[in-house]
Amino acid sequence: MKAVNVGLLGLGTVGSGTLDVLRRNACEIRRRAGREIRVAAAAVRDPSRKRGCDTGGIALGDSPLDIANDPNIDIVVELIGGDEIAREAVLRAVDNGKHVVTANKALIALHGNAIFENAQRRGVMVAFEAAVAGGIPVIKSVREGLAGNRIEWLAGIINGTCNYILSAMDESGMDFDAALRDAQQLGYAEAQPEFDIDGIDAAHKLTILASIAFGIPLQFARVHVEGIRGIAAEDIAYARELGHRIKHLALARRAPDGIELRAHPALVAERQLLSGVGGVMNAILVHADAVGPTLYYGAGAGGEPTASAVVADLVDVVRAITTDPQNRVPHLAFQPGSLAALPILPIGEIETAYYLRMRAANRPGVLAEIARIFGDSGISIDTLLQKGRGRADESVTIIMLTQRTRERSMDAALAKLAALDSVAGEIVRIRMEKLA
Amino acid sequence: MKAVNVGLLGLGTVGSGTLDVLRRNACEIRRRAGREIRVAAAAVRDPSRKRGCDTGGIALGDSPLDIANDPNIDIVVELIGGDEIAREAVLRAVDNGKHVVTANKALIALHGNAIFENAQRRGVMVAFEAAVAGGIPVIKSVREGLAGNRIEWLAGIINGTCNYILSAMDESGMDFDAALRDAQQLGYAEAQPEFDIDGIDAAHKLTILASIAFGIPLQFARVHVEGIRGIAAEDIAYARELGHRIKHLALARRAPDGIELRAHPALVAERQLLSGVGGVMNAILVHADAVGPTLYYGAGAGGEPTASAVVADLVDVVRAITTDPQNRVPHLAFQPGSLAALPILPIGEIETAYYLRMRAANRPGVLAEIARIFGDSGISIDTLLQKGRGRADESVTIIMLTQRTRERSMDAALAKLAALDSVAGEIVRIRMEKLA
Repeated sequence: MKAVNVGLLGLGTVGSGTLDVLRRNACEIRRRAGREIRVAAAAVRDPSRKRGCDTGGIALGDSPLDIANDPNIDIVVELIGGDEIAREAVLRAVDNGKHVVTANKALIALHGNAIFENAQRRGVMVAFEAAVAGGIPVIKSVREGLAGNRIEWLAGIINGTCNYILSAMDESGMDFDAALRDAQQLGYAEAQPEFDIDGIDAAHKLTILASIAFGIPLQFARVHVEGIRGIAAEDIAYARELGHRIKHLALARRAPDGIELRAHPALVAERQLLSGVGGVMNAILVHADAVGPTLYYGAGAGGEPTASAVVADLVDVVRAITTDPQNRVPHLAFQPGSLAALPILPIGEIETAYYLRMRAANRPGVLAEIARIFGDSGISIDTLLQKGRGRADESVTIIMLTQRTRERSMDAALAKLAALDSVAGEIVRIRMEKLA
Repeated sequence: MKAVNVGLLGLGTVGSGTLDVLRRNACEIRRRAGREIRVAAAAVRDPSRKRGCDTGGIALGDSPLDIANDPNIDIVVELIGGDEIAREAVLRAVDNGKHVVTANKALIALHGNAIFENAQRRGVMVAFEAAVAGGIPVIKSVREGLAGNRIEWLAGIINGTCNYILSAMDESGMDFDAALRDAQQLGYAEAQPEFDIDGIDAAHKLTILASIAFGIPLQFARVHVEGIRGIAAEDIAYARELGHRIKHLALARRAPDGIELRAHPALVAERQLLSGVGGVMNAILVHADAVGPTLYYGAGAGGEPTASAVVADLVDVVRAITTDPQNRVPHLAFQPGSLAALPILPIGEIETAYYLRMRAANRPGVLAEIARIFGDSGISIDTLLQKGRGRADESVTIIMLTQRTRERSMDAALAKLAALDSVAGEIVRIRMEKLA
């Protein structure tokens, strides 16, 4: 089947991330979408400038409108940002019957109503998963995954810059200005940081989330917006003393008389999962009548995380325009006939860390004996606790955490250990997963 | 447009939950799906028995096969569980060209390969979001939302019974047998709990997750399965001393030589979000190459949470068979033309709790003065801290947490407070969100 031709508007962080992901995972993406996705053209400000990403095979130009008008392009991916050129190019692409994928929250929050109306009329898709919370598939989850629910409220940490600054203030006690400078040096805040720290970016995303949650038109102008400039280090310290963290939250709630739409700093109790969302990470908590609370966590910005959402939208569009509706999404995610025959490893071949507990005789040399067995098996001990130091004729409990090793090596070491006179009874072994 | 006719197999907890949700949210669901979803028939063991849910207008019978053969039924929803009658009925429905929605993990993990092959041949959909992690849309997220990624590994807490028991042991120090009895009394564990506590249920779900993550056939028999019977209270205590929790994890990992597939207890470091997933809740952490880590959290079982996923699948199927592919999922989740004109509340009308910080004169009667203002405004104080107790001529810092109140009442109270001689300088006010 013929490849789908994509035109990219913008080759900044997200644009080049999208190119990289489409190239690196071309095979997996094709197995999922059932068709090759090819970037045929891209518009950039200065086509002659050298770039970090490989643009081989791509027609580089400087006009987004040219791409929106190009009859060879099936899908336009808008990654310019801002709401003027982007709006013109997206509307033109839609008018020309092209599908659009965009990561532009300002564009959708401010002009989405008109764009969607045009798209509906022209029978094309405008996909915007990447516009909210980067790589977290929260648009899809709320719009499709929770379609049976009446959504009651949602609360999100959806601006990574604010969350990084507040987390840094919380962890180090530094004040806002120092944390902002820190964030700027690390690339987590722009040189002109107003959009993020004054809450506007979060309000754009909230506008979109509220609309798909409650079935209301996009209405950015009605969001109450406050940023984090006013948060003092001492308030973070007092909040902590009271069992809370201060987070920048975007909230939408169905109240008896209408909808609350607000983005502002707020205290969140420590036992809430949201309070544990640190650094530049994002998370959205959604309360719905049937499912109760669900939470979606991940990277809310950055080249490849945002590209992840862009490519997911591309696959969605390709699946919709390529296959009959019944086979739109393959049952097992990959097209039938392209499942892989990867071997499943026997448990002896897996690698993990271990927690061990055993009883050993309380006499000199025993620990050395145990340690030698692990050393001979190439297993490193991370932590060792010895509990109970009774008389010489009593045994002690030894608890160990090991580094990662192959399970079969651990089996062999434990067999040798069990054969020692100085080790008595069962050796408890529980795997320890680092999850990172 | 004509309603879609659904035949329900089973009216247990999930079946009656599904009926309840379809009835209660009929209007919202229709606004999303573009078409009425009507339960026309249901098969139950004893049709004459009185039920907790309203079965008015539904043809009750005792034969799943009759429903699978009924020409008036468009979609069969299989909620019987087990893998014998369910398999026969699902295969029959597919043969008859009906779409299927199922919550049955054993069925999919054991017979999914054959069922999907038949469905593909007959051009029908078999949807199974409810089979993994109840109401969390993790199938959709991994299968569609992460479609651009090469998935590296995933780790889930996907058995609520195990998680409840381990959380209870961790919190109260009780041993496994006591925690199991507790779980049984609360309805979180079955009278015959083997399926859950020996890890089989988690292994079924892991089989499905691994398949959609890596694009491999379903292969339950290759999962290494261990349950939680062997976990001693003292190991939970030692793990805690070492900064860890013990969780029952289901893990799938792309290792150099093949795929690791295993469900077993494991130590998880406290700083990991997964370690904070307590009680019967579920969560799945997915590591993928472009997006990095994402996490999906929510209720993994129960009538309405599972019904949430069943109804989402129904809406998916209805959207696919009803609309042209381009308009399958409405841009803003609800069909154009059925967006609601709900008012957005001005910030003064919202209700929330508050953190307040102010400086007040250090003399008798000041606190009473402040408290009276709040009392007169109907605002209750939850917590009050006073910091610094200098000499009589110095001021002190007062920090308060209030209960929920209307923002406009708080504005009025703060205006009165600011007018007091005894309160000096700015009054810091940060909203406090309970998120529950």
